[in-house]
Amino acid sequence: MTSIALCTINNSARSIARVCQASRSAHGTADFHSFVSHYSTLRKCAFLPGGKWSFIRAGTRQMSQASPGRISLGRYGKGVFLAAGAAAVTGVLAAGVSHFQRAEMATKISRVEEEEGDVRERCKSFMSPPVTDIKVLEQRKDEMSTRMEMLIMETQAAFCRALEEVDGGTFKVDRWSRKEGGGGISCVMQDGKVFEKAGVNVSVVFGNLTEEAAKQMRSRGKVLKGKDGKLPFCAMGVSSVIHPKNPHIPTVHFNYRYFEIEEADGTKQWWFGGGTDLTPVYIDLEDAAHFHKTLKKACDKHHPKYYPDFKKWCDNYFYIRHRGETRGIGGIFFDDLDSPNQEEVFNFVKSCAKTVVPCYLPIVYKHLNDSFSPEEKDWQQVRRGRYVEFNLVYDRGVKFGLATPGSRIESILMSLPLTARWEYMHEPTKGTKEAEMLEVLRNPKEWI
Amino acid sequence: MTSIALCTINNSARSIARVCQASRSAHGTADFHSFVSHYSTLRKCAFLPGGKWSFIRAGTRQMSQASPGRISLGRYGKGVFLAAGAAAVTGVLAAGVSHFQRAEMATKISRVEEEEGDVRERCKSFMSPPVTDIKVLEQRKDEMSTRMEMLIMETQAAFCRALEEVDGGTFKVDRWSRKEGGGGISCVMQDGKVFEKAGVNVSVVFGNLTEEAAKQMRSRGKVLKGKDGKLPFCAMGVSSVIHPKNPHIPTVHFNYRYFEIEEADGTKQWWFGGGTDLTPVYIDLEDAAHFHKTLKKACDKHHPKYYPDFKKWCDNYFYIRHRGETRGIGGIFFDDLDSPNQEEVFNFVKSCAKTVVPCYLPIVYKHLNDSFSPEEKDWQQVRRGRYVEFNLVYDRGVKFGLATPGSRIESILMSLPLTARWEYMHEPTKGTKEAEMLEVLRNPKEWI
Repeated sequence: MTSIALCTINNSARSIARVCQASRSAHGTADFHSFVSHYSTLRKCAFLPGGKWSFIRAGTRQMSQASPGRISLGRYGKGVFLAAGAAAVTGVLAAGVSHFQRAEMATKISRVEEEEGDVRERCKSFMSPPVTDIKVLEQRKDEMSTRMEMLIMETQAAFCRALEEVDGGTFKVDRWSRKEGGGGISCVMQDGKVFEKAGVNVSVVFGNLTEEAAKQMRSRGKVLKGKDGKLPFCAMGVSSVIHPKNPHIPTVHFNYRYFEIEEADGTKQWWFGGGTDLTPVYIDLEDAAHFHKTLKKACDKHHPKYYPDFKKWCDNYFYIRHRGETRGIGGIFFDDLDSPNQEEVFNFVKSCAKTVVPCYLPIVYKHLNDSFSPEEKDWQQVRRGRYVEFNLVYDRGVKFGLATPGSRIESILMSLPLTARWEYMHEPTKGTKEAEMLEVLRNPKEWI
Repeated sequence: MTSIALCTINNSARSIARVCQASRSAHGTADFHSFVSHYSTLRKCAFLPGGKWSFIRAGTRQMSQASPGRISLGRYGKGVFLAAGAAAVTGVLAAGVSHFQRAEMATKISRVEEEEGDVRERCKSFMSPPVTDIKVLEQRKDEMSTRMEMLIMETQAAFCRALEEVDGGTFKVDRWSRKEGGGGISCVMQDGKVFEKAGVNVSVVFGNLTEEAAKQMRSRGKVLKGKDGKLPFCAMGVSSVIHPKNPHIPTVHFNYRYFEIEEADGTKQWWFGGGTDLTPVYIDLEDAAHFHKTLKKACDKHHPKYYPDFKKWCDNYFYIRHRGETRGIGGIFFDDLDSPNQEEVFNFVKSCAKTVVPCYLPIVYKHLNDSFSPEEKDWQQVRRGRYVEFNLVYDRGVKFGLATPGSRIESILMSLPLTARWEYMHEPTKGTKEAEMLEVLRNPKEWI
């Protein structure tokens, strides 16, 4: 929940810096590039009263009111969806094509599009007006801070819409502002049909850092020189945690973030961070392979070492030390990325951000109707307890956010599940599916 | 859960020292002096196979199989219980005398007894053989470490028996040992009729500290000189967290602990710490007054400033900073207590430890049959979430325990409830009982 921490900033430059530092440590998402951009294109067809976009297909306006578990071919025009490439996550394609094949198709079809068009037009698809005034974004549309803010707003919207589509529920959208500059948009859906708790946050904050704070912000500890000891900074990110009800649908988390600091001589220091990771309750080899393959494909387009390096980083970061187990089956995680150049890194982050929907939604649809026992629900609740332990004890973003007076606590702790369970001396019986899951968490493996 | 942290010690003297330091920061219990000692006296009547003591009254042997909510005068001989003074917590007295009046009677009647008799005989009432070998305890029976170990073992037993009595369930008893010296006894009852999760831990650990570590152990940062830089130490404590199922029965926590360090010249540094605090889900003025009055009475016997000072310390310690609210309605909390002399401080700690049962059990019995709505259960679960937040984010004992490799995690996290809940933007409606509770947590008040 890194980007969330970005919003939790207090008055002093020192605390701002700490937030940024904490934010850098947080987690990741992936690549739904083509898919999402197309998704937004579809949504541009009709801007309904109340600011909610709707699909228009074959002359019929449809609200996003999918009944989870009861998706039929007849709901939307089949041909329209094939052409749209959105079928991967709405599950409306003809049988015989797997959830994962559909995801791939969607990705290929929509990659031909490029999401960067008219700023004002693109803003219409967002969950809320962007944090920065649209006029300012239009004036500075070629600046990286604008391009990143547009990307995180689009990522939030695309992911929220995809989740609303499968759940049938609606996100509650909260805008908040930060006294010293910037603010955020928190989208939360709670106790839906499919999702116990789903949170997708955006934050865009700016202000001044002290030299000491700026130094602490980067893991490589570069010394930065400010004007009268102060360094203007800008930090932004999108982050999300989704806890489904069905124990056969895994929890997903992603976060993508960007930082800029300006030195006294006008030099701009910048870097990106992020990642996407999956936390299943039961191991499903096909899901794990799909998730990691989708991430690897996004990484491989940019550098052959990205996936193996960031996969390892992810396993190391999401480690619950006191339990001797990872939080989930990982994904990718990276930080402090500033080479080979800003354009290249942004393109990589964009690929990652656009992978979120194709990484996760096919898995959701696949398990939507899976039946489960009370025992399986209990095991999910025990694993949720572990999720809480990681987030409250280790997550640097959360820890820092909580330690910062004036934080927007509700956005920080949005990552906690609706319900969790702690059983004394809980240890699954050997040979059970629960023991199999634990074995994987104790010994992270390669999924591709 | 301070004393629990005592058990979580790893190989190096440094880590041992850290544990001790963490332990000093932990929380508190109170004073069931008379009552509990009497309770043990009763139990000495018959030592059943399997090591479980039973009551013998008026020629009838009775196992502790109370059915919660269905306690009747006929269960035990009324006269016997009046004489025993144990009625305060078993609720079997005639109507017309309040739960709290009964508690007072029990305290007065049993205060005339003194618990310090034959070591071997006293050990029979424990939940398990003590951590230190009984022969060693007998040889050193006048030493403070022995007297304190006997007290914490008795406190554990008395509290566990009282809880078993009201719940009808049985504590699971786990003994564990520490490679470098000492060990502990964890008693846990989970998913009982009355208690969702009840944990009562004892730990007794010893070894060597570095001078630096020893210095860090005390808040007053006294410099201690060791032989070749090493200082033999001994640390012990009892700690407990009880989470009931019924939202009208509050959660209670207590912890009492003792530390000794020996300097190169043979000088022994020692101090005590501890406290007891209550975390209700709904405010009940009578309960709050009873709880605080019982604690105040125990404190006042030793120093008029103890209750006001330690009440304030408690409110400050159990503060969930990021929420701007206390964990509960407090009680007492103290640390680093080493004056006026060892005997006096031990007597104070003994008074406190012996107040645990009369502080809490009358409240449990009072609300045993209270009905509650699903909404009240939900509010309890939200408050449980806050309990988890405090324990994982702020509790110094837990934090340190988790950070120490080789910790007995299950004993440390025994303090977490069986179930908890996090609702986004949860805020009780004005004028409701939930809002009333929150108001008290946001503005700690005087209860006497």
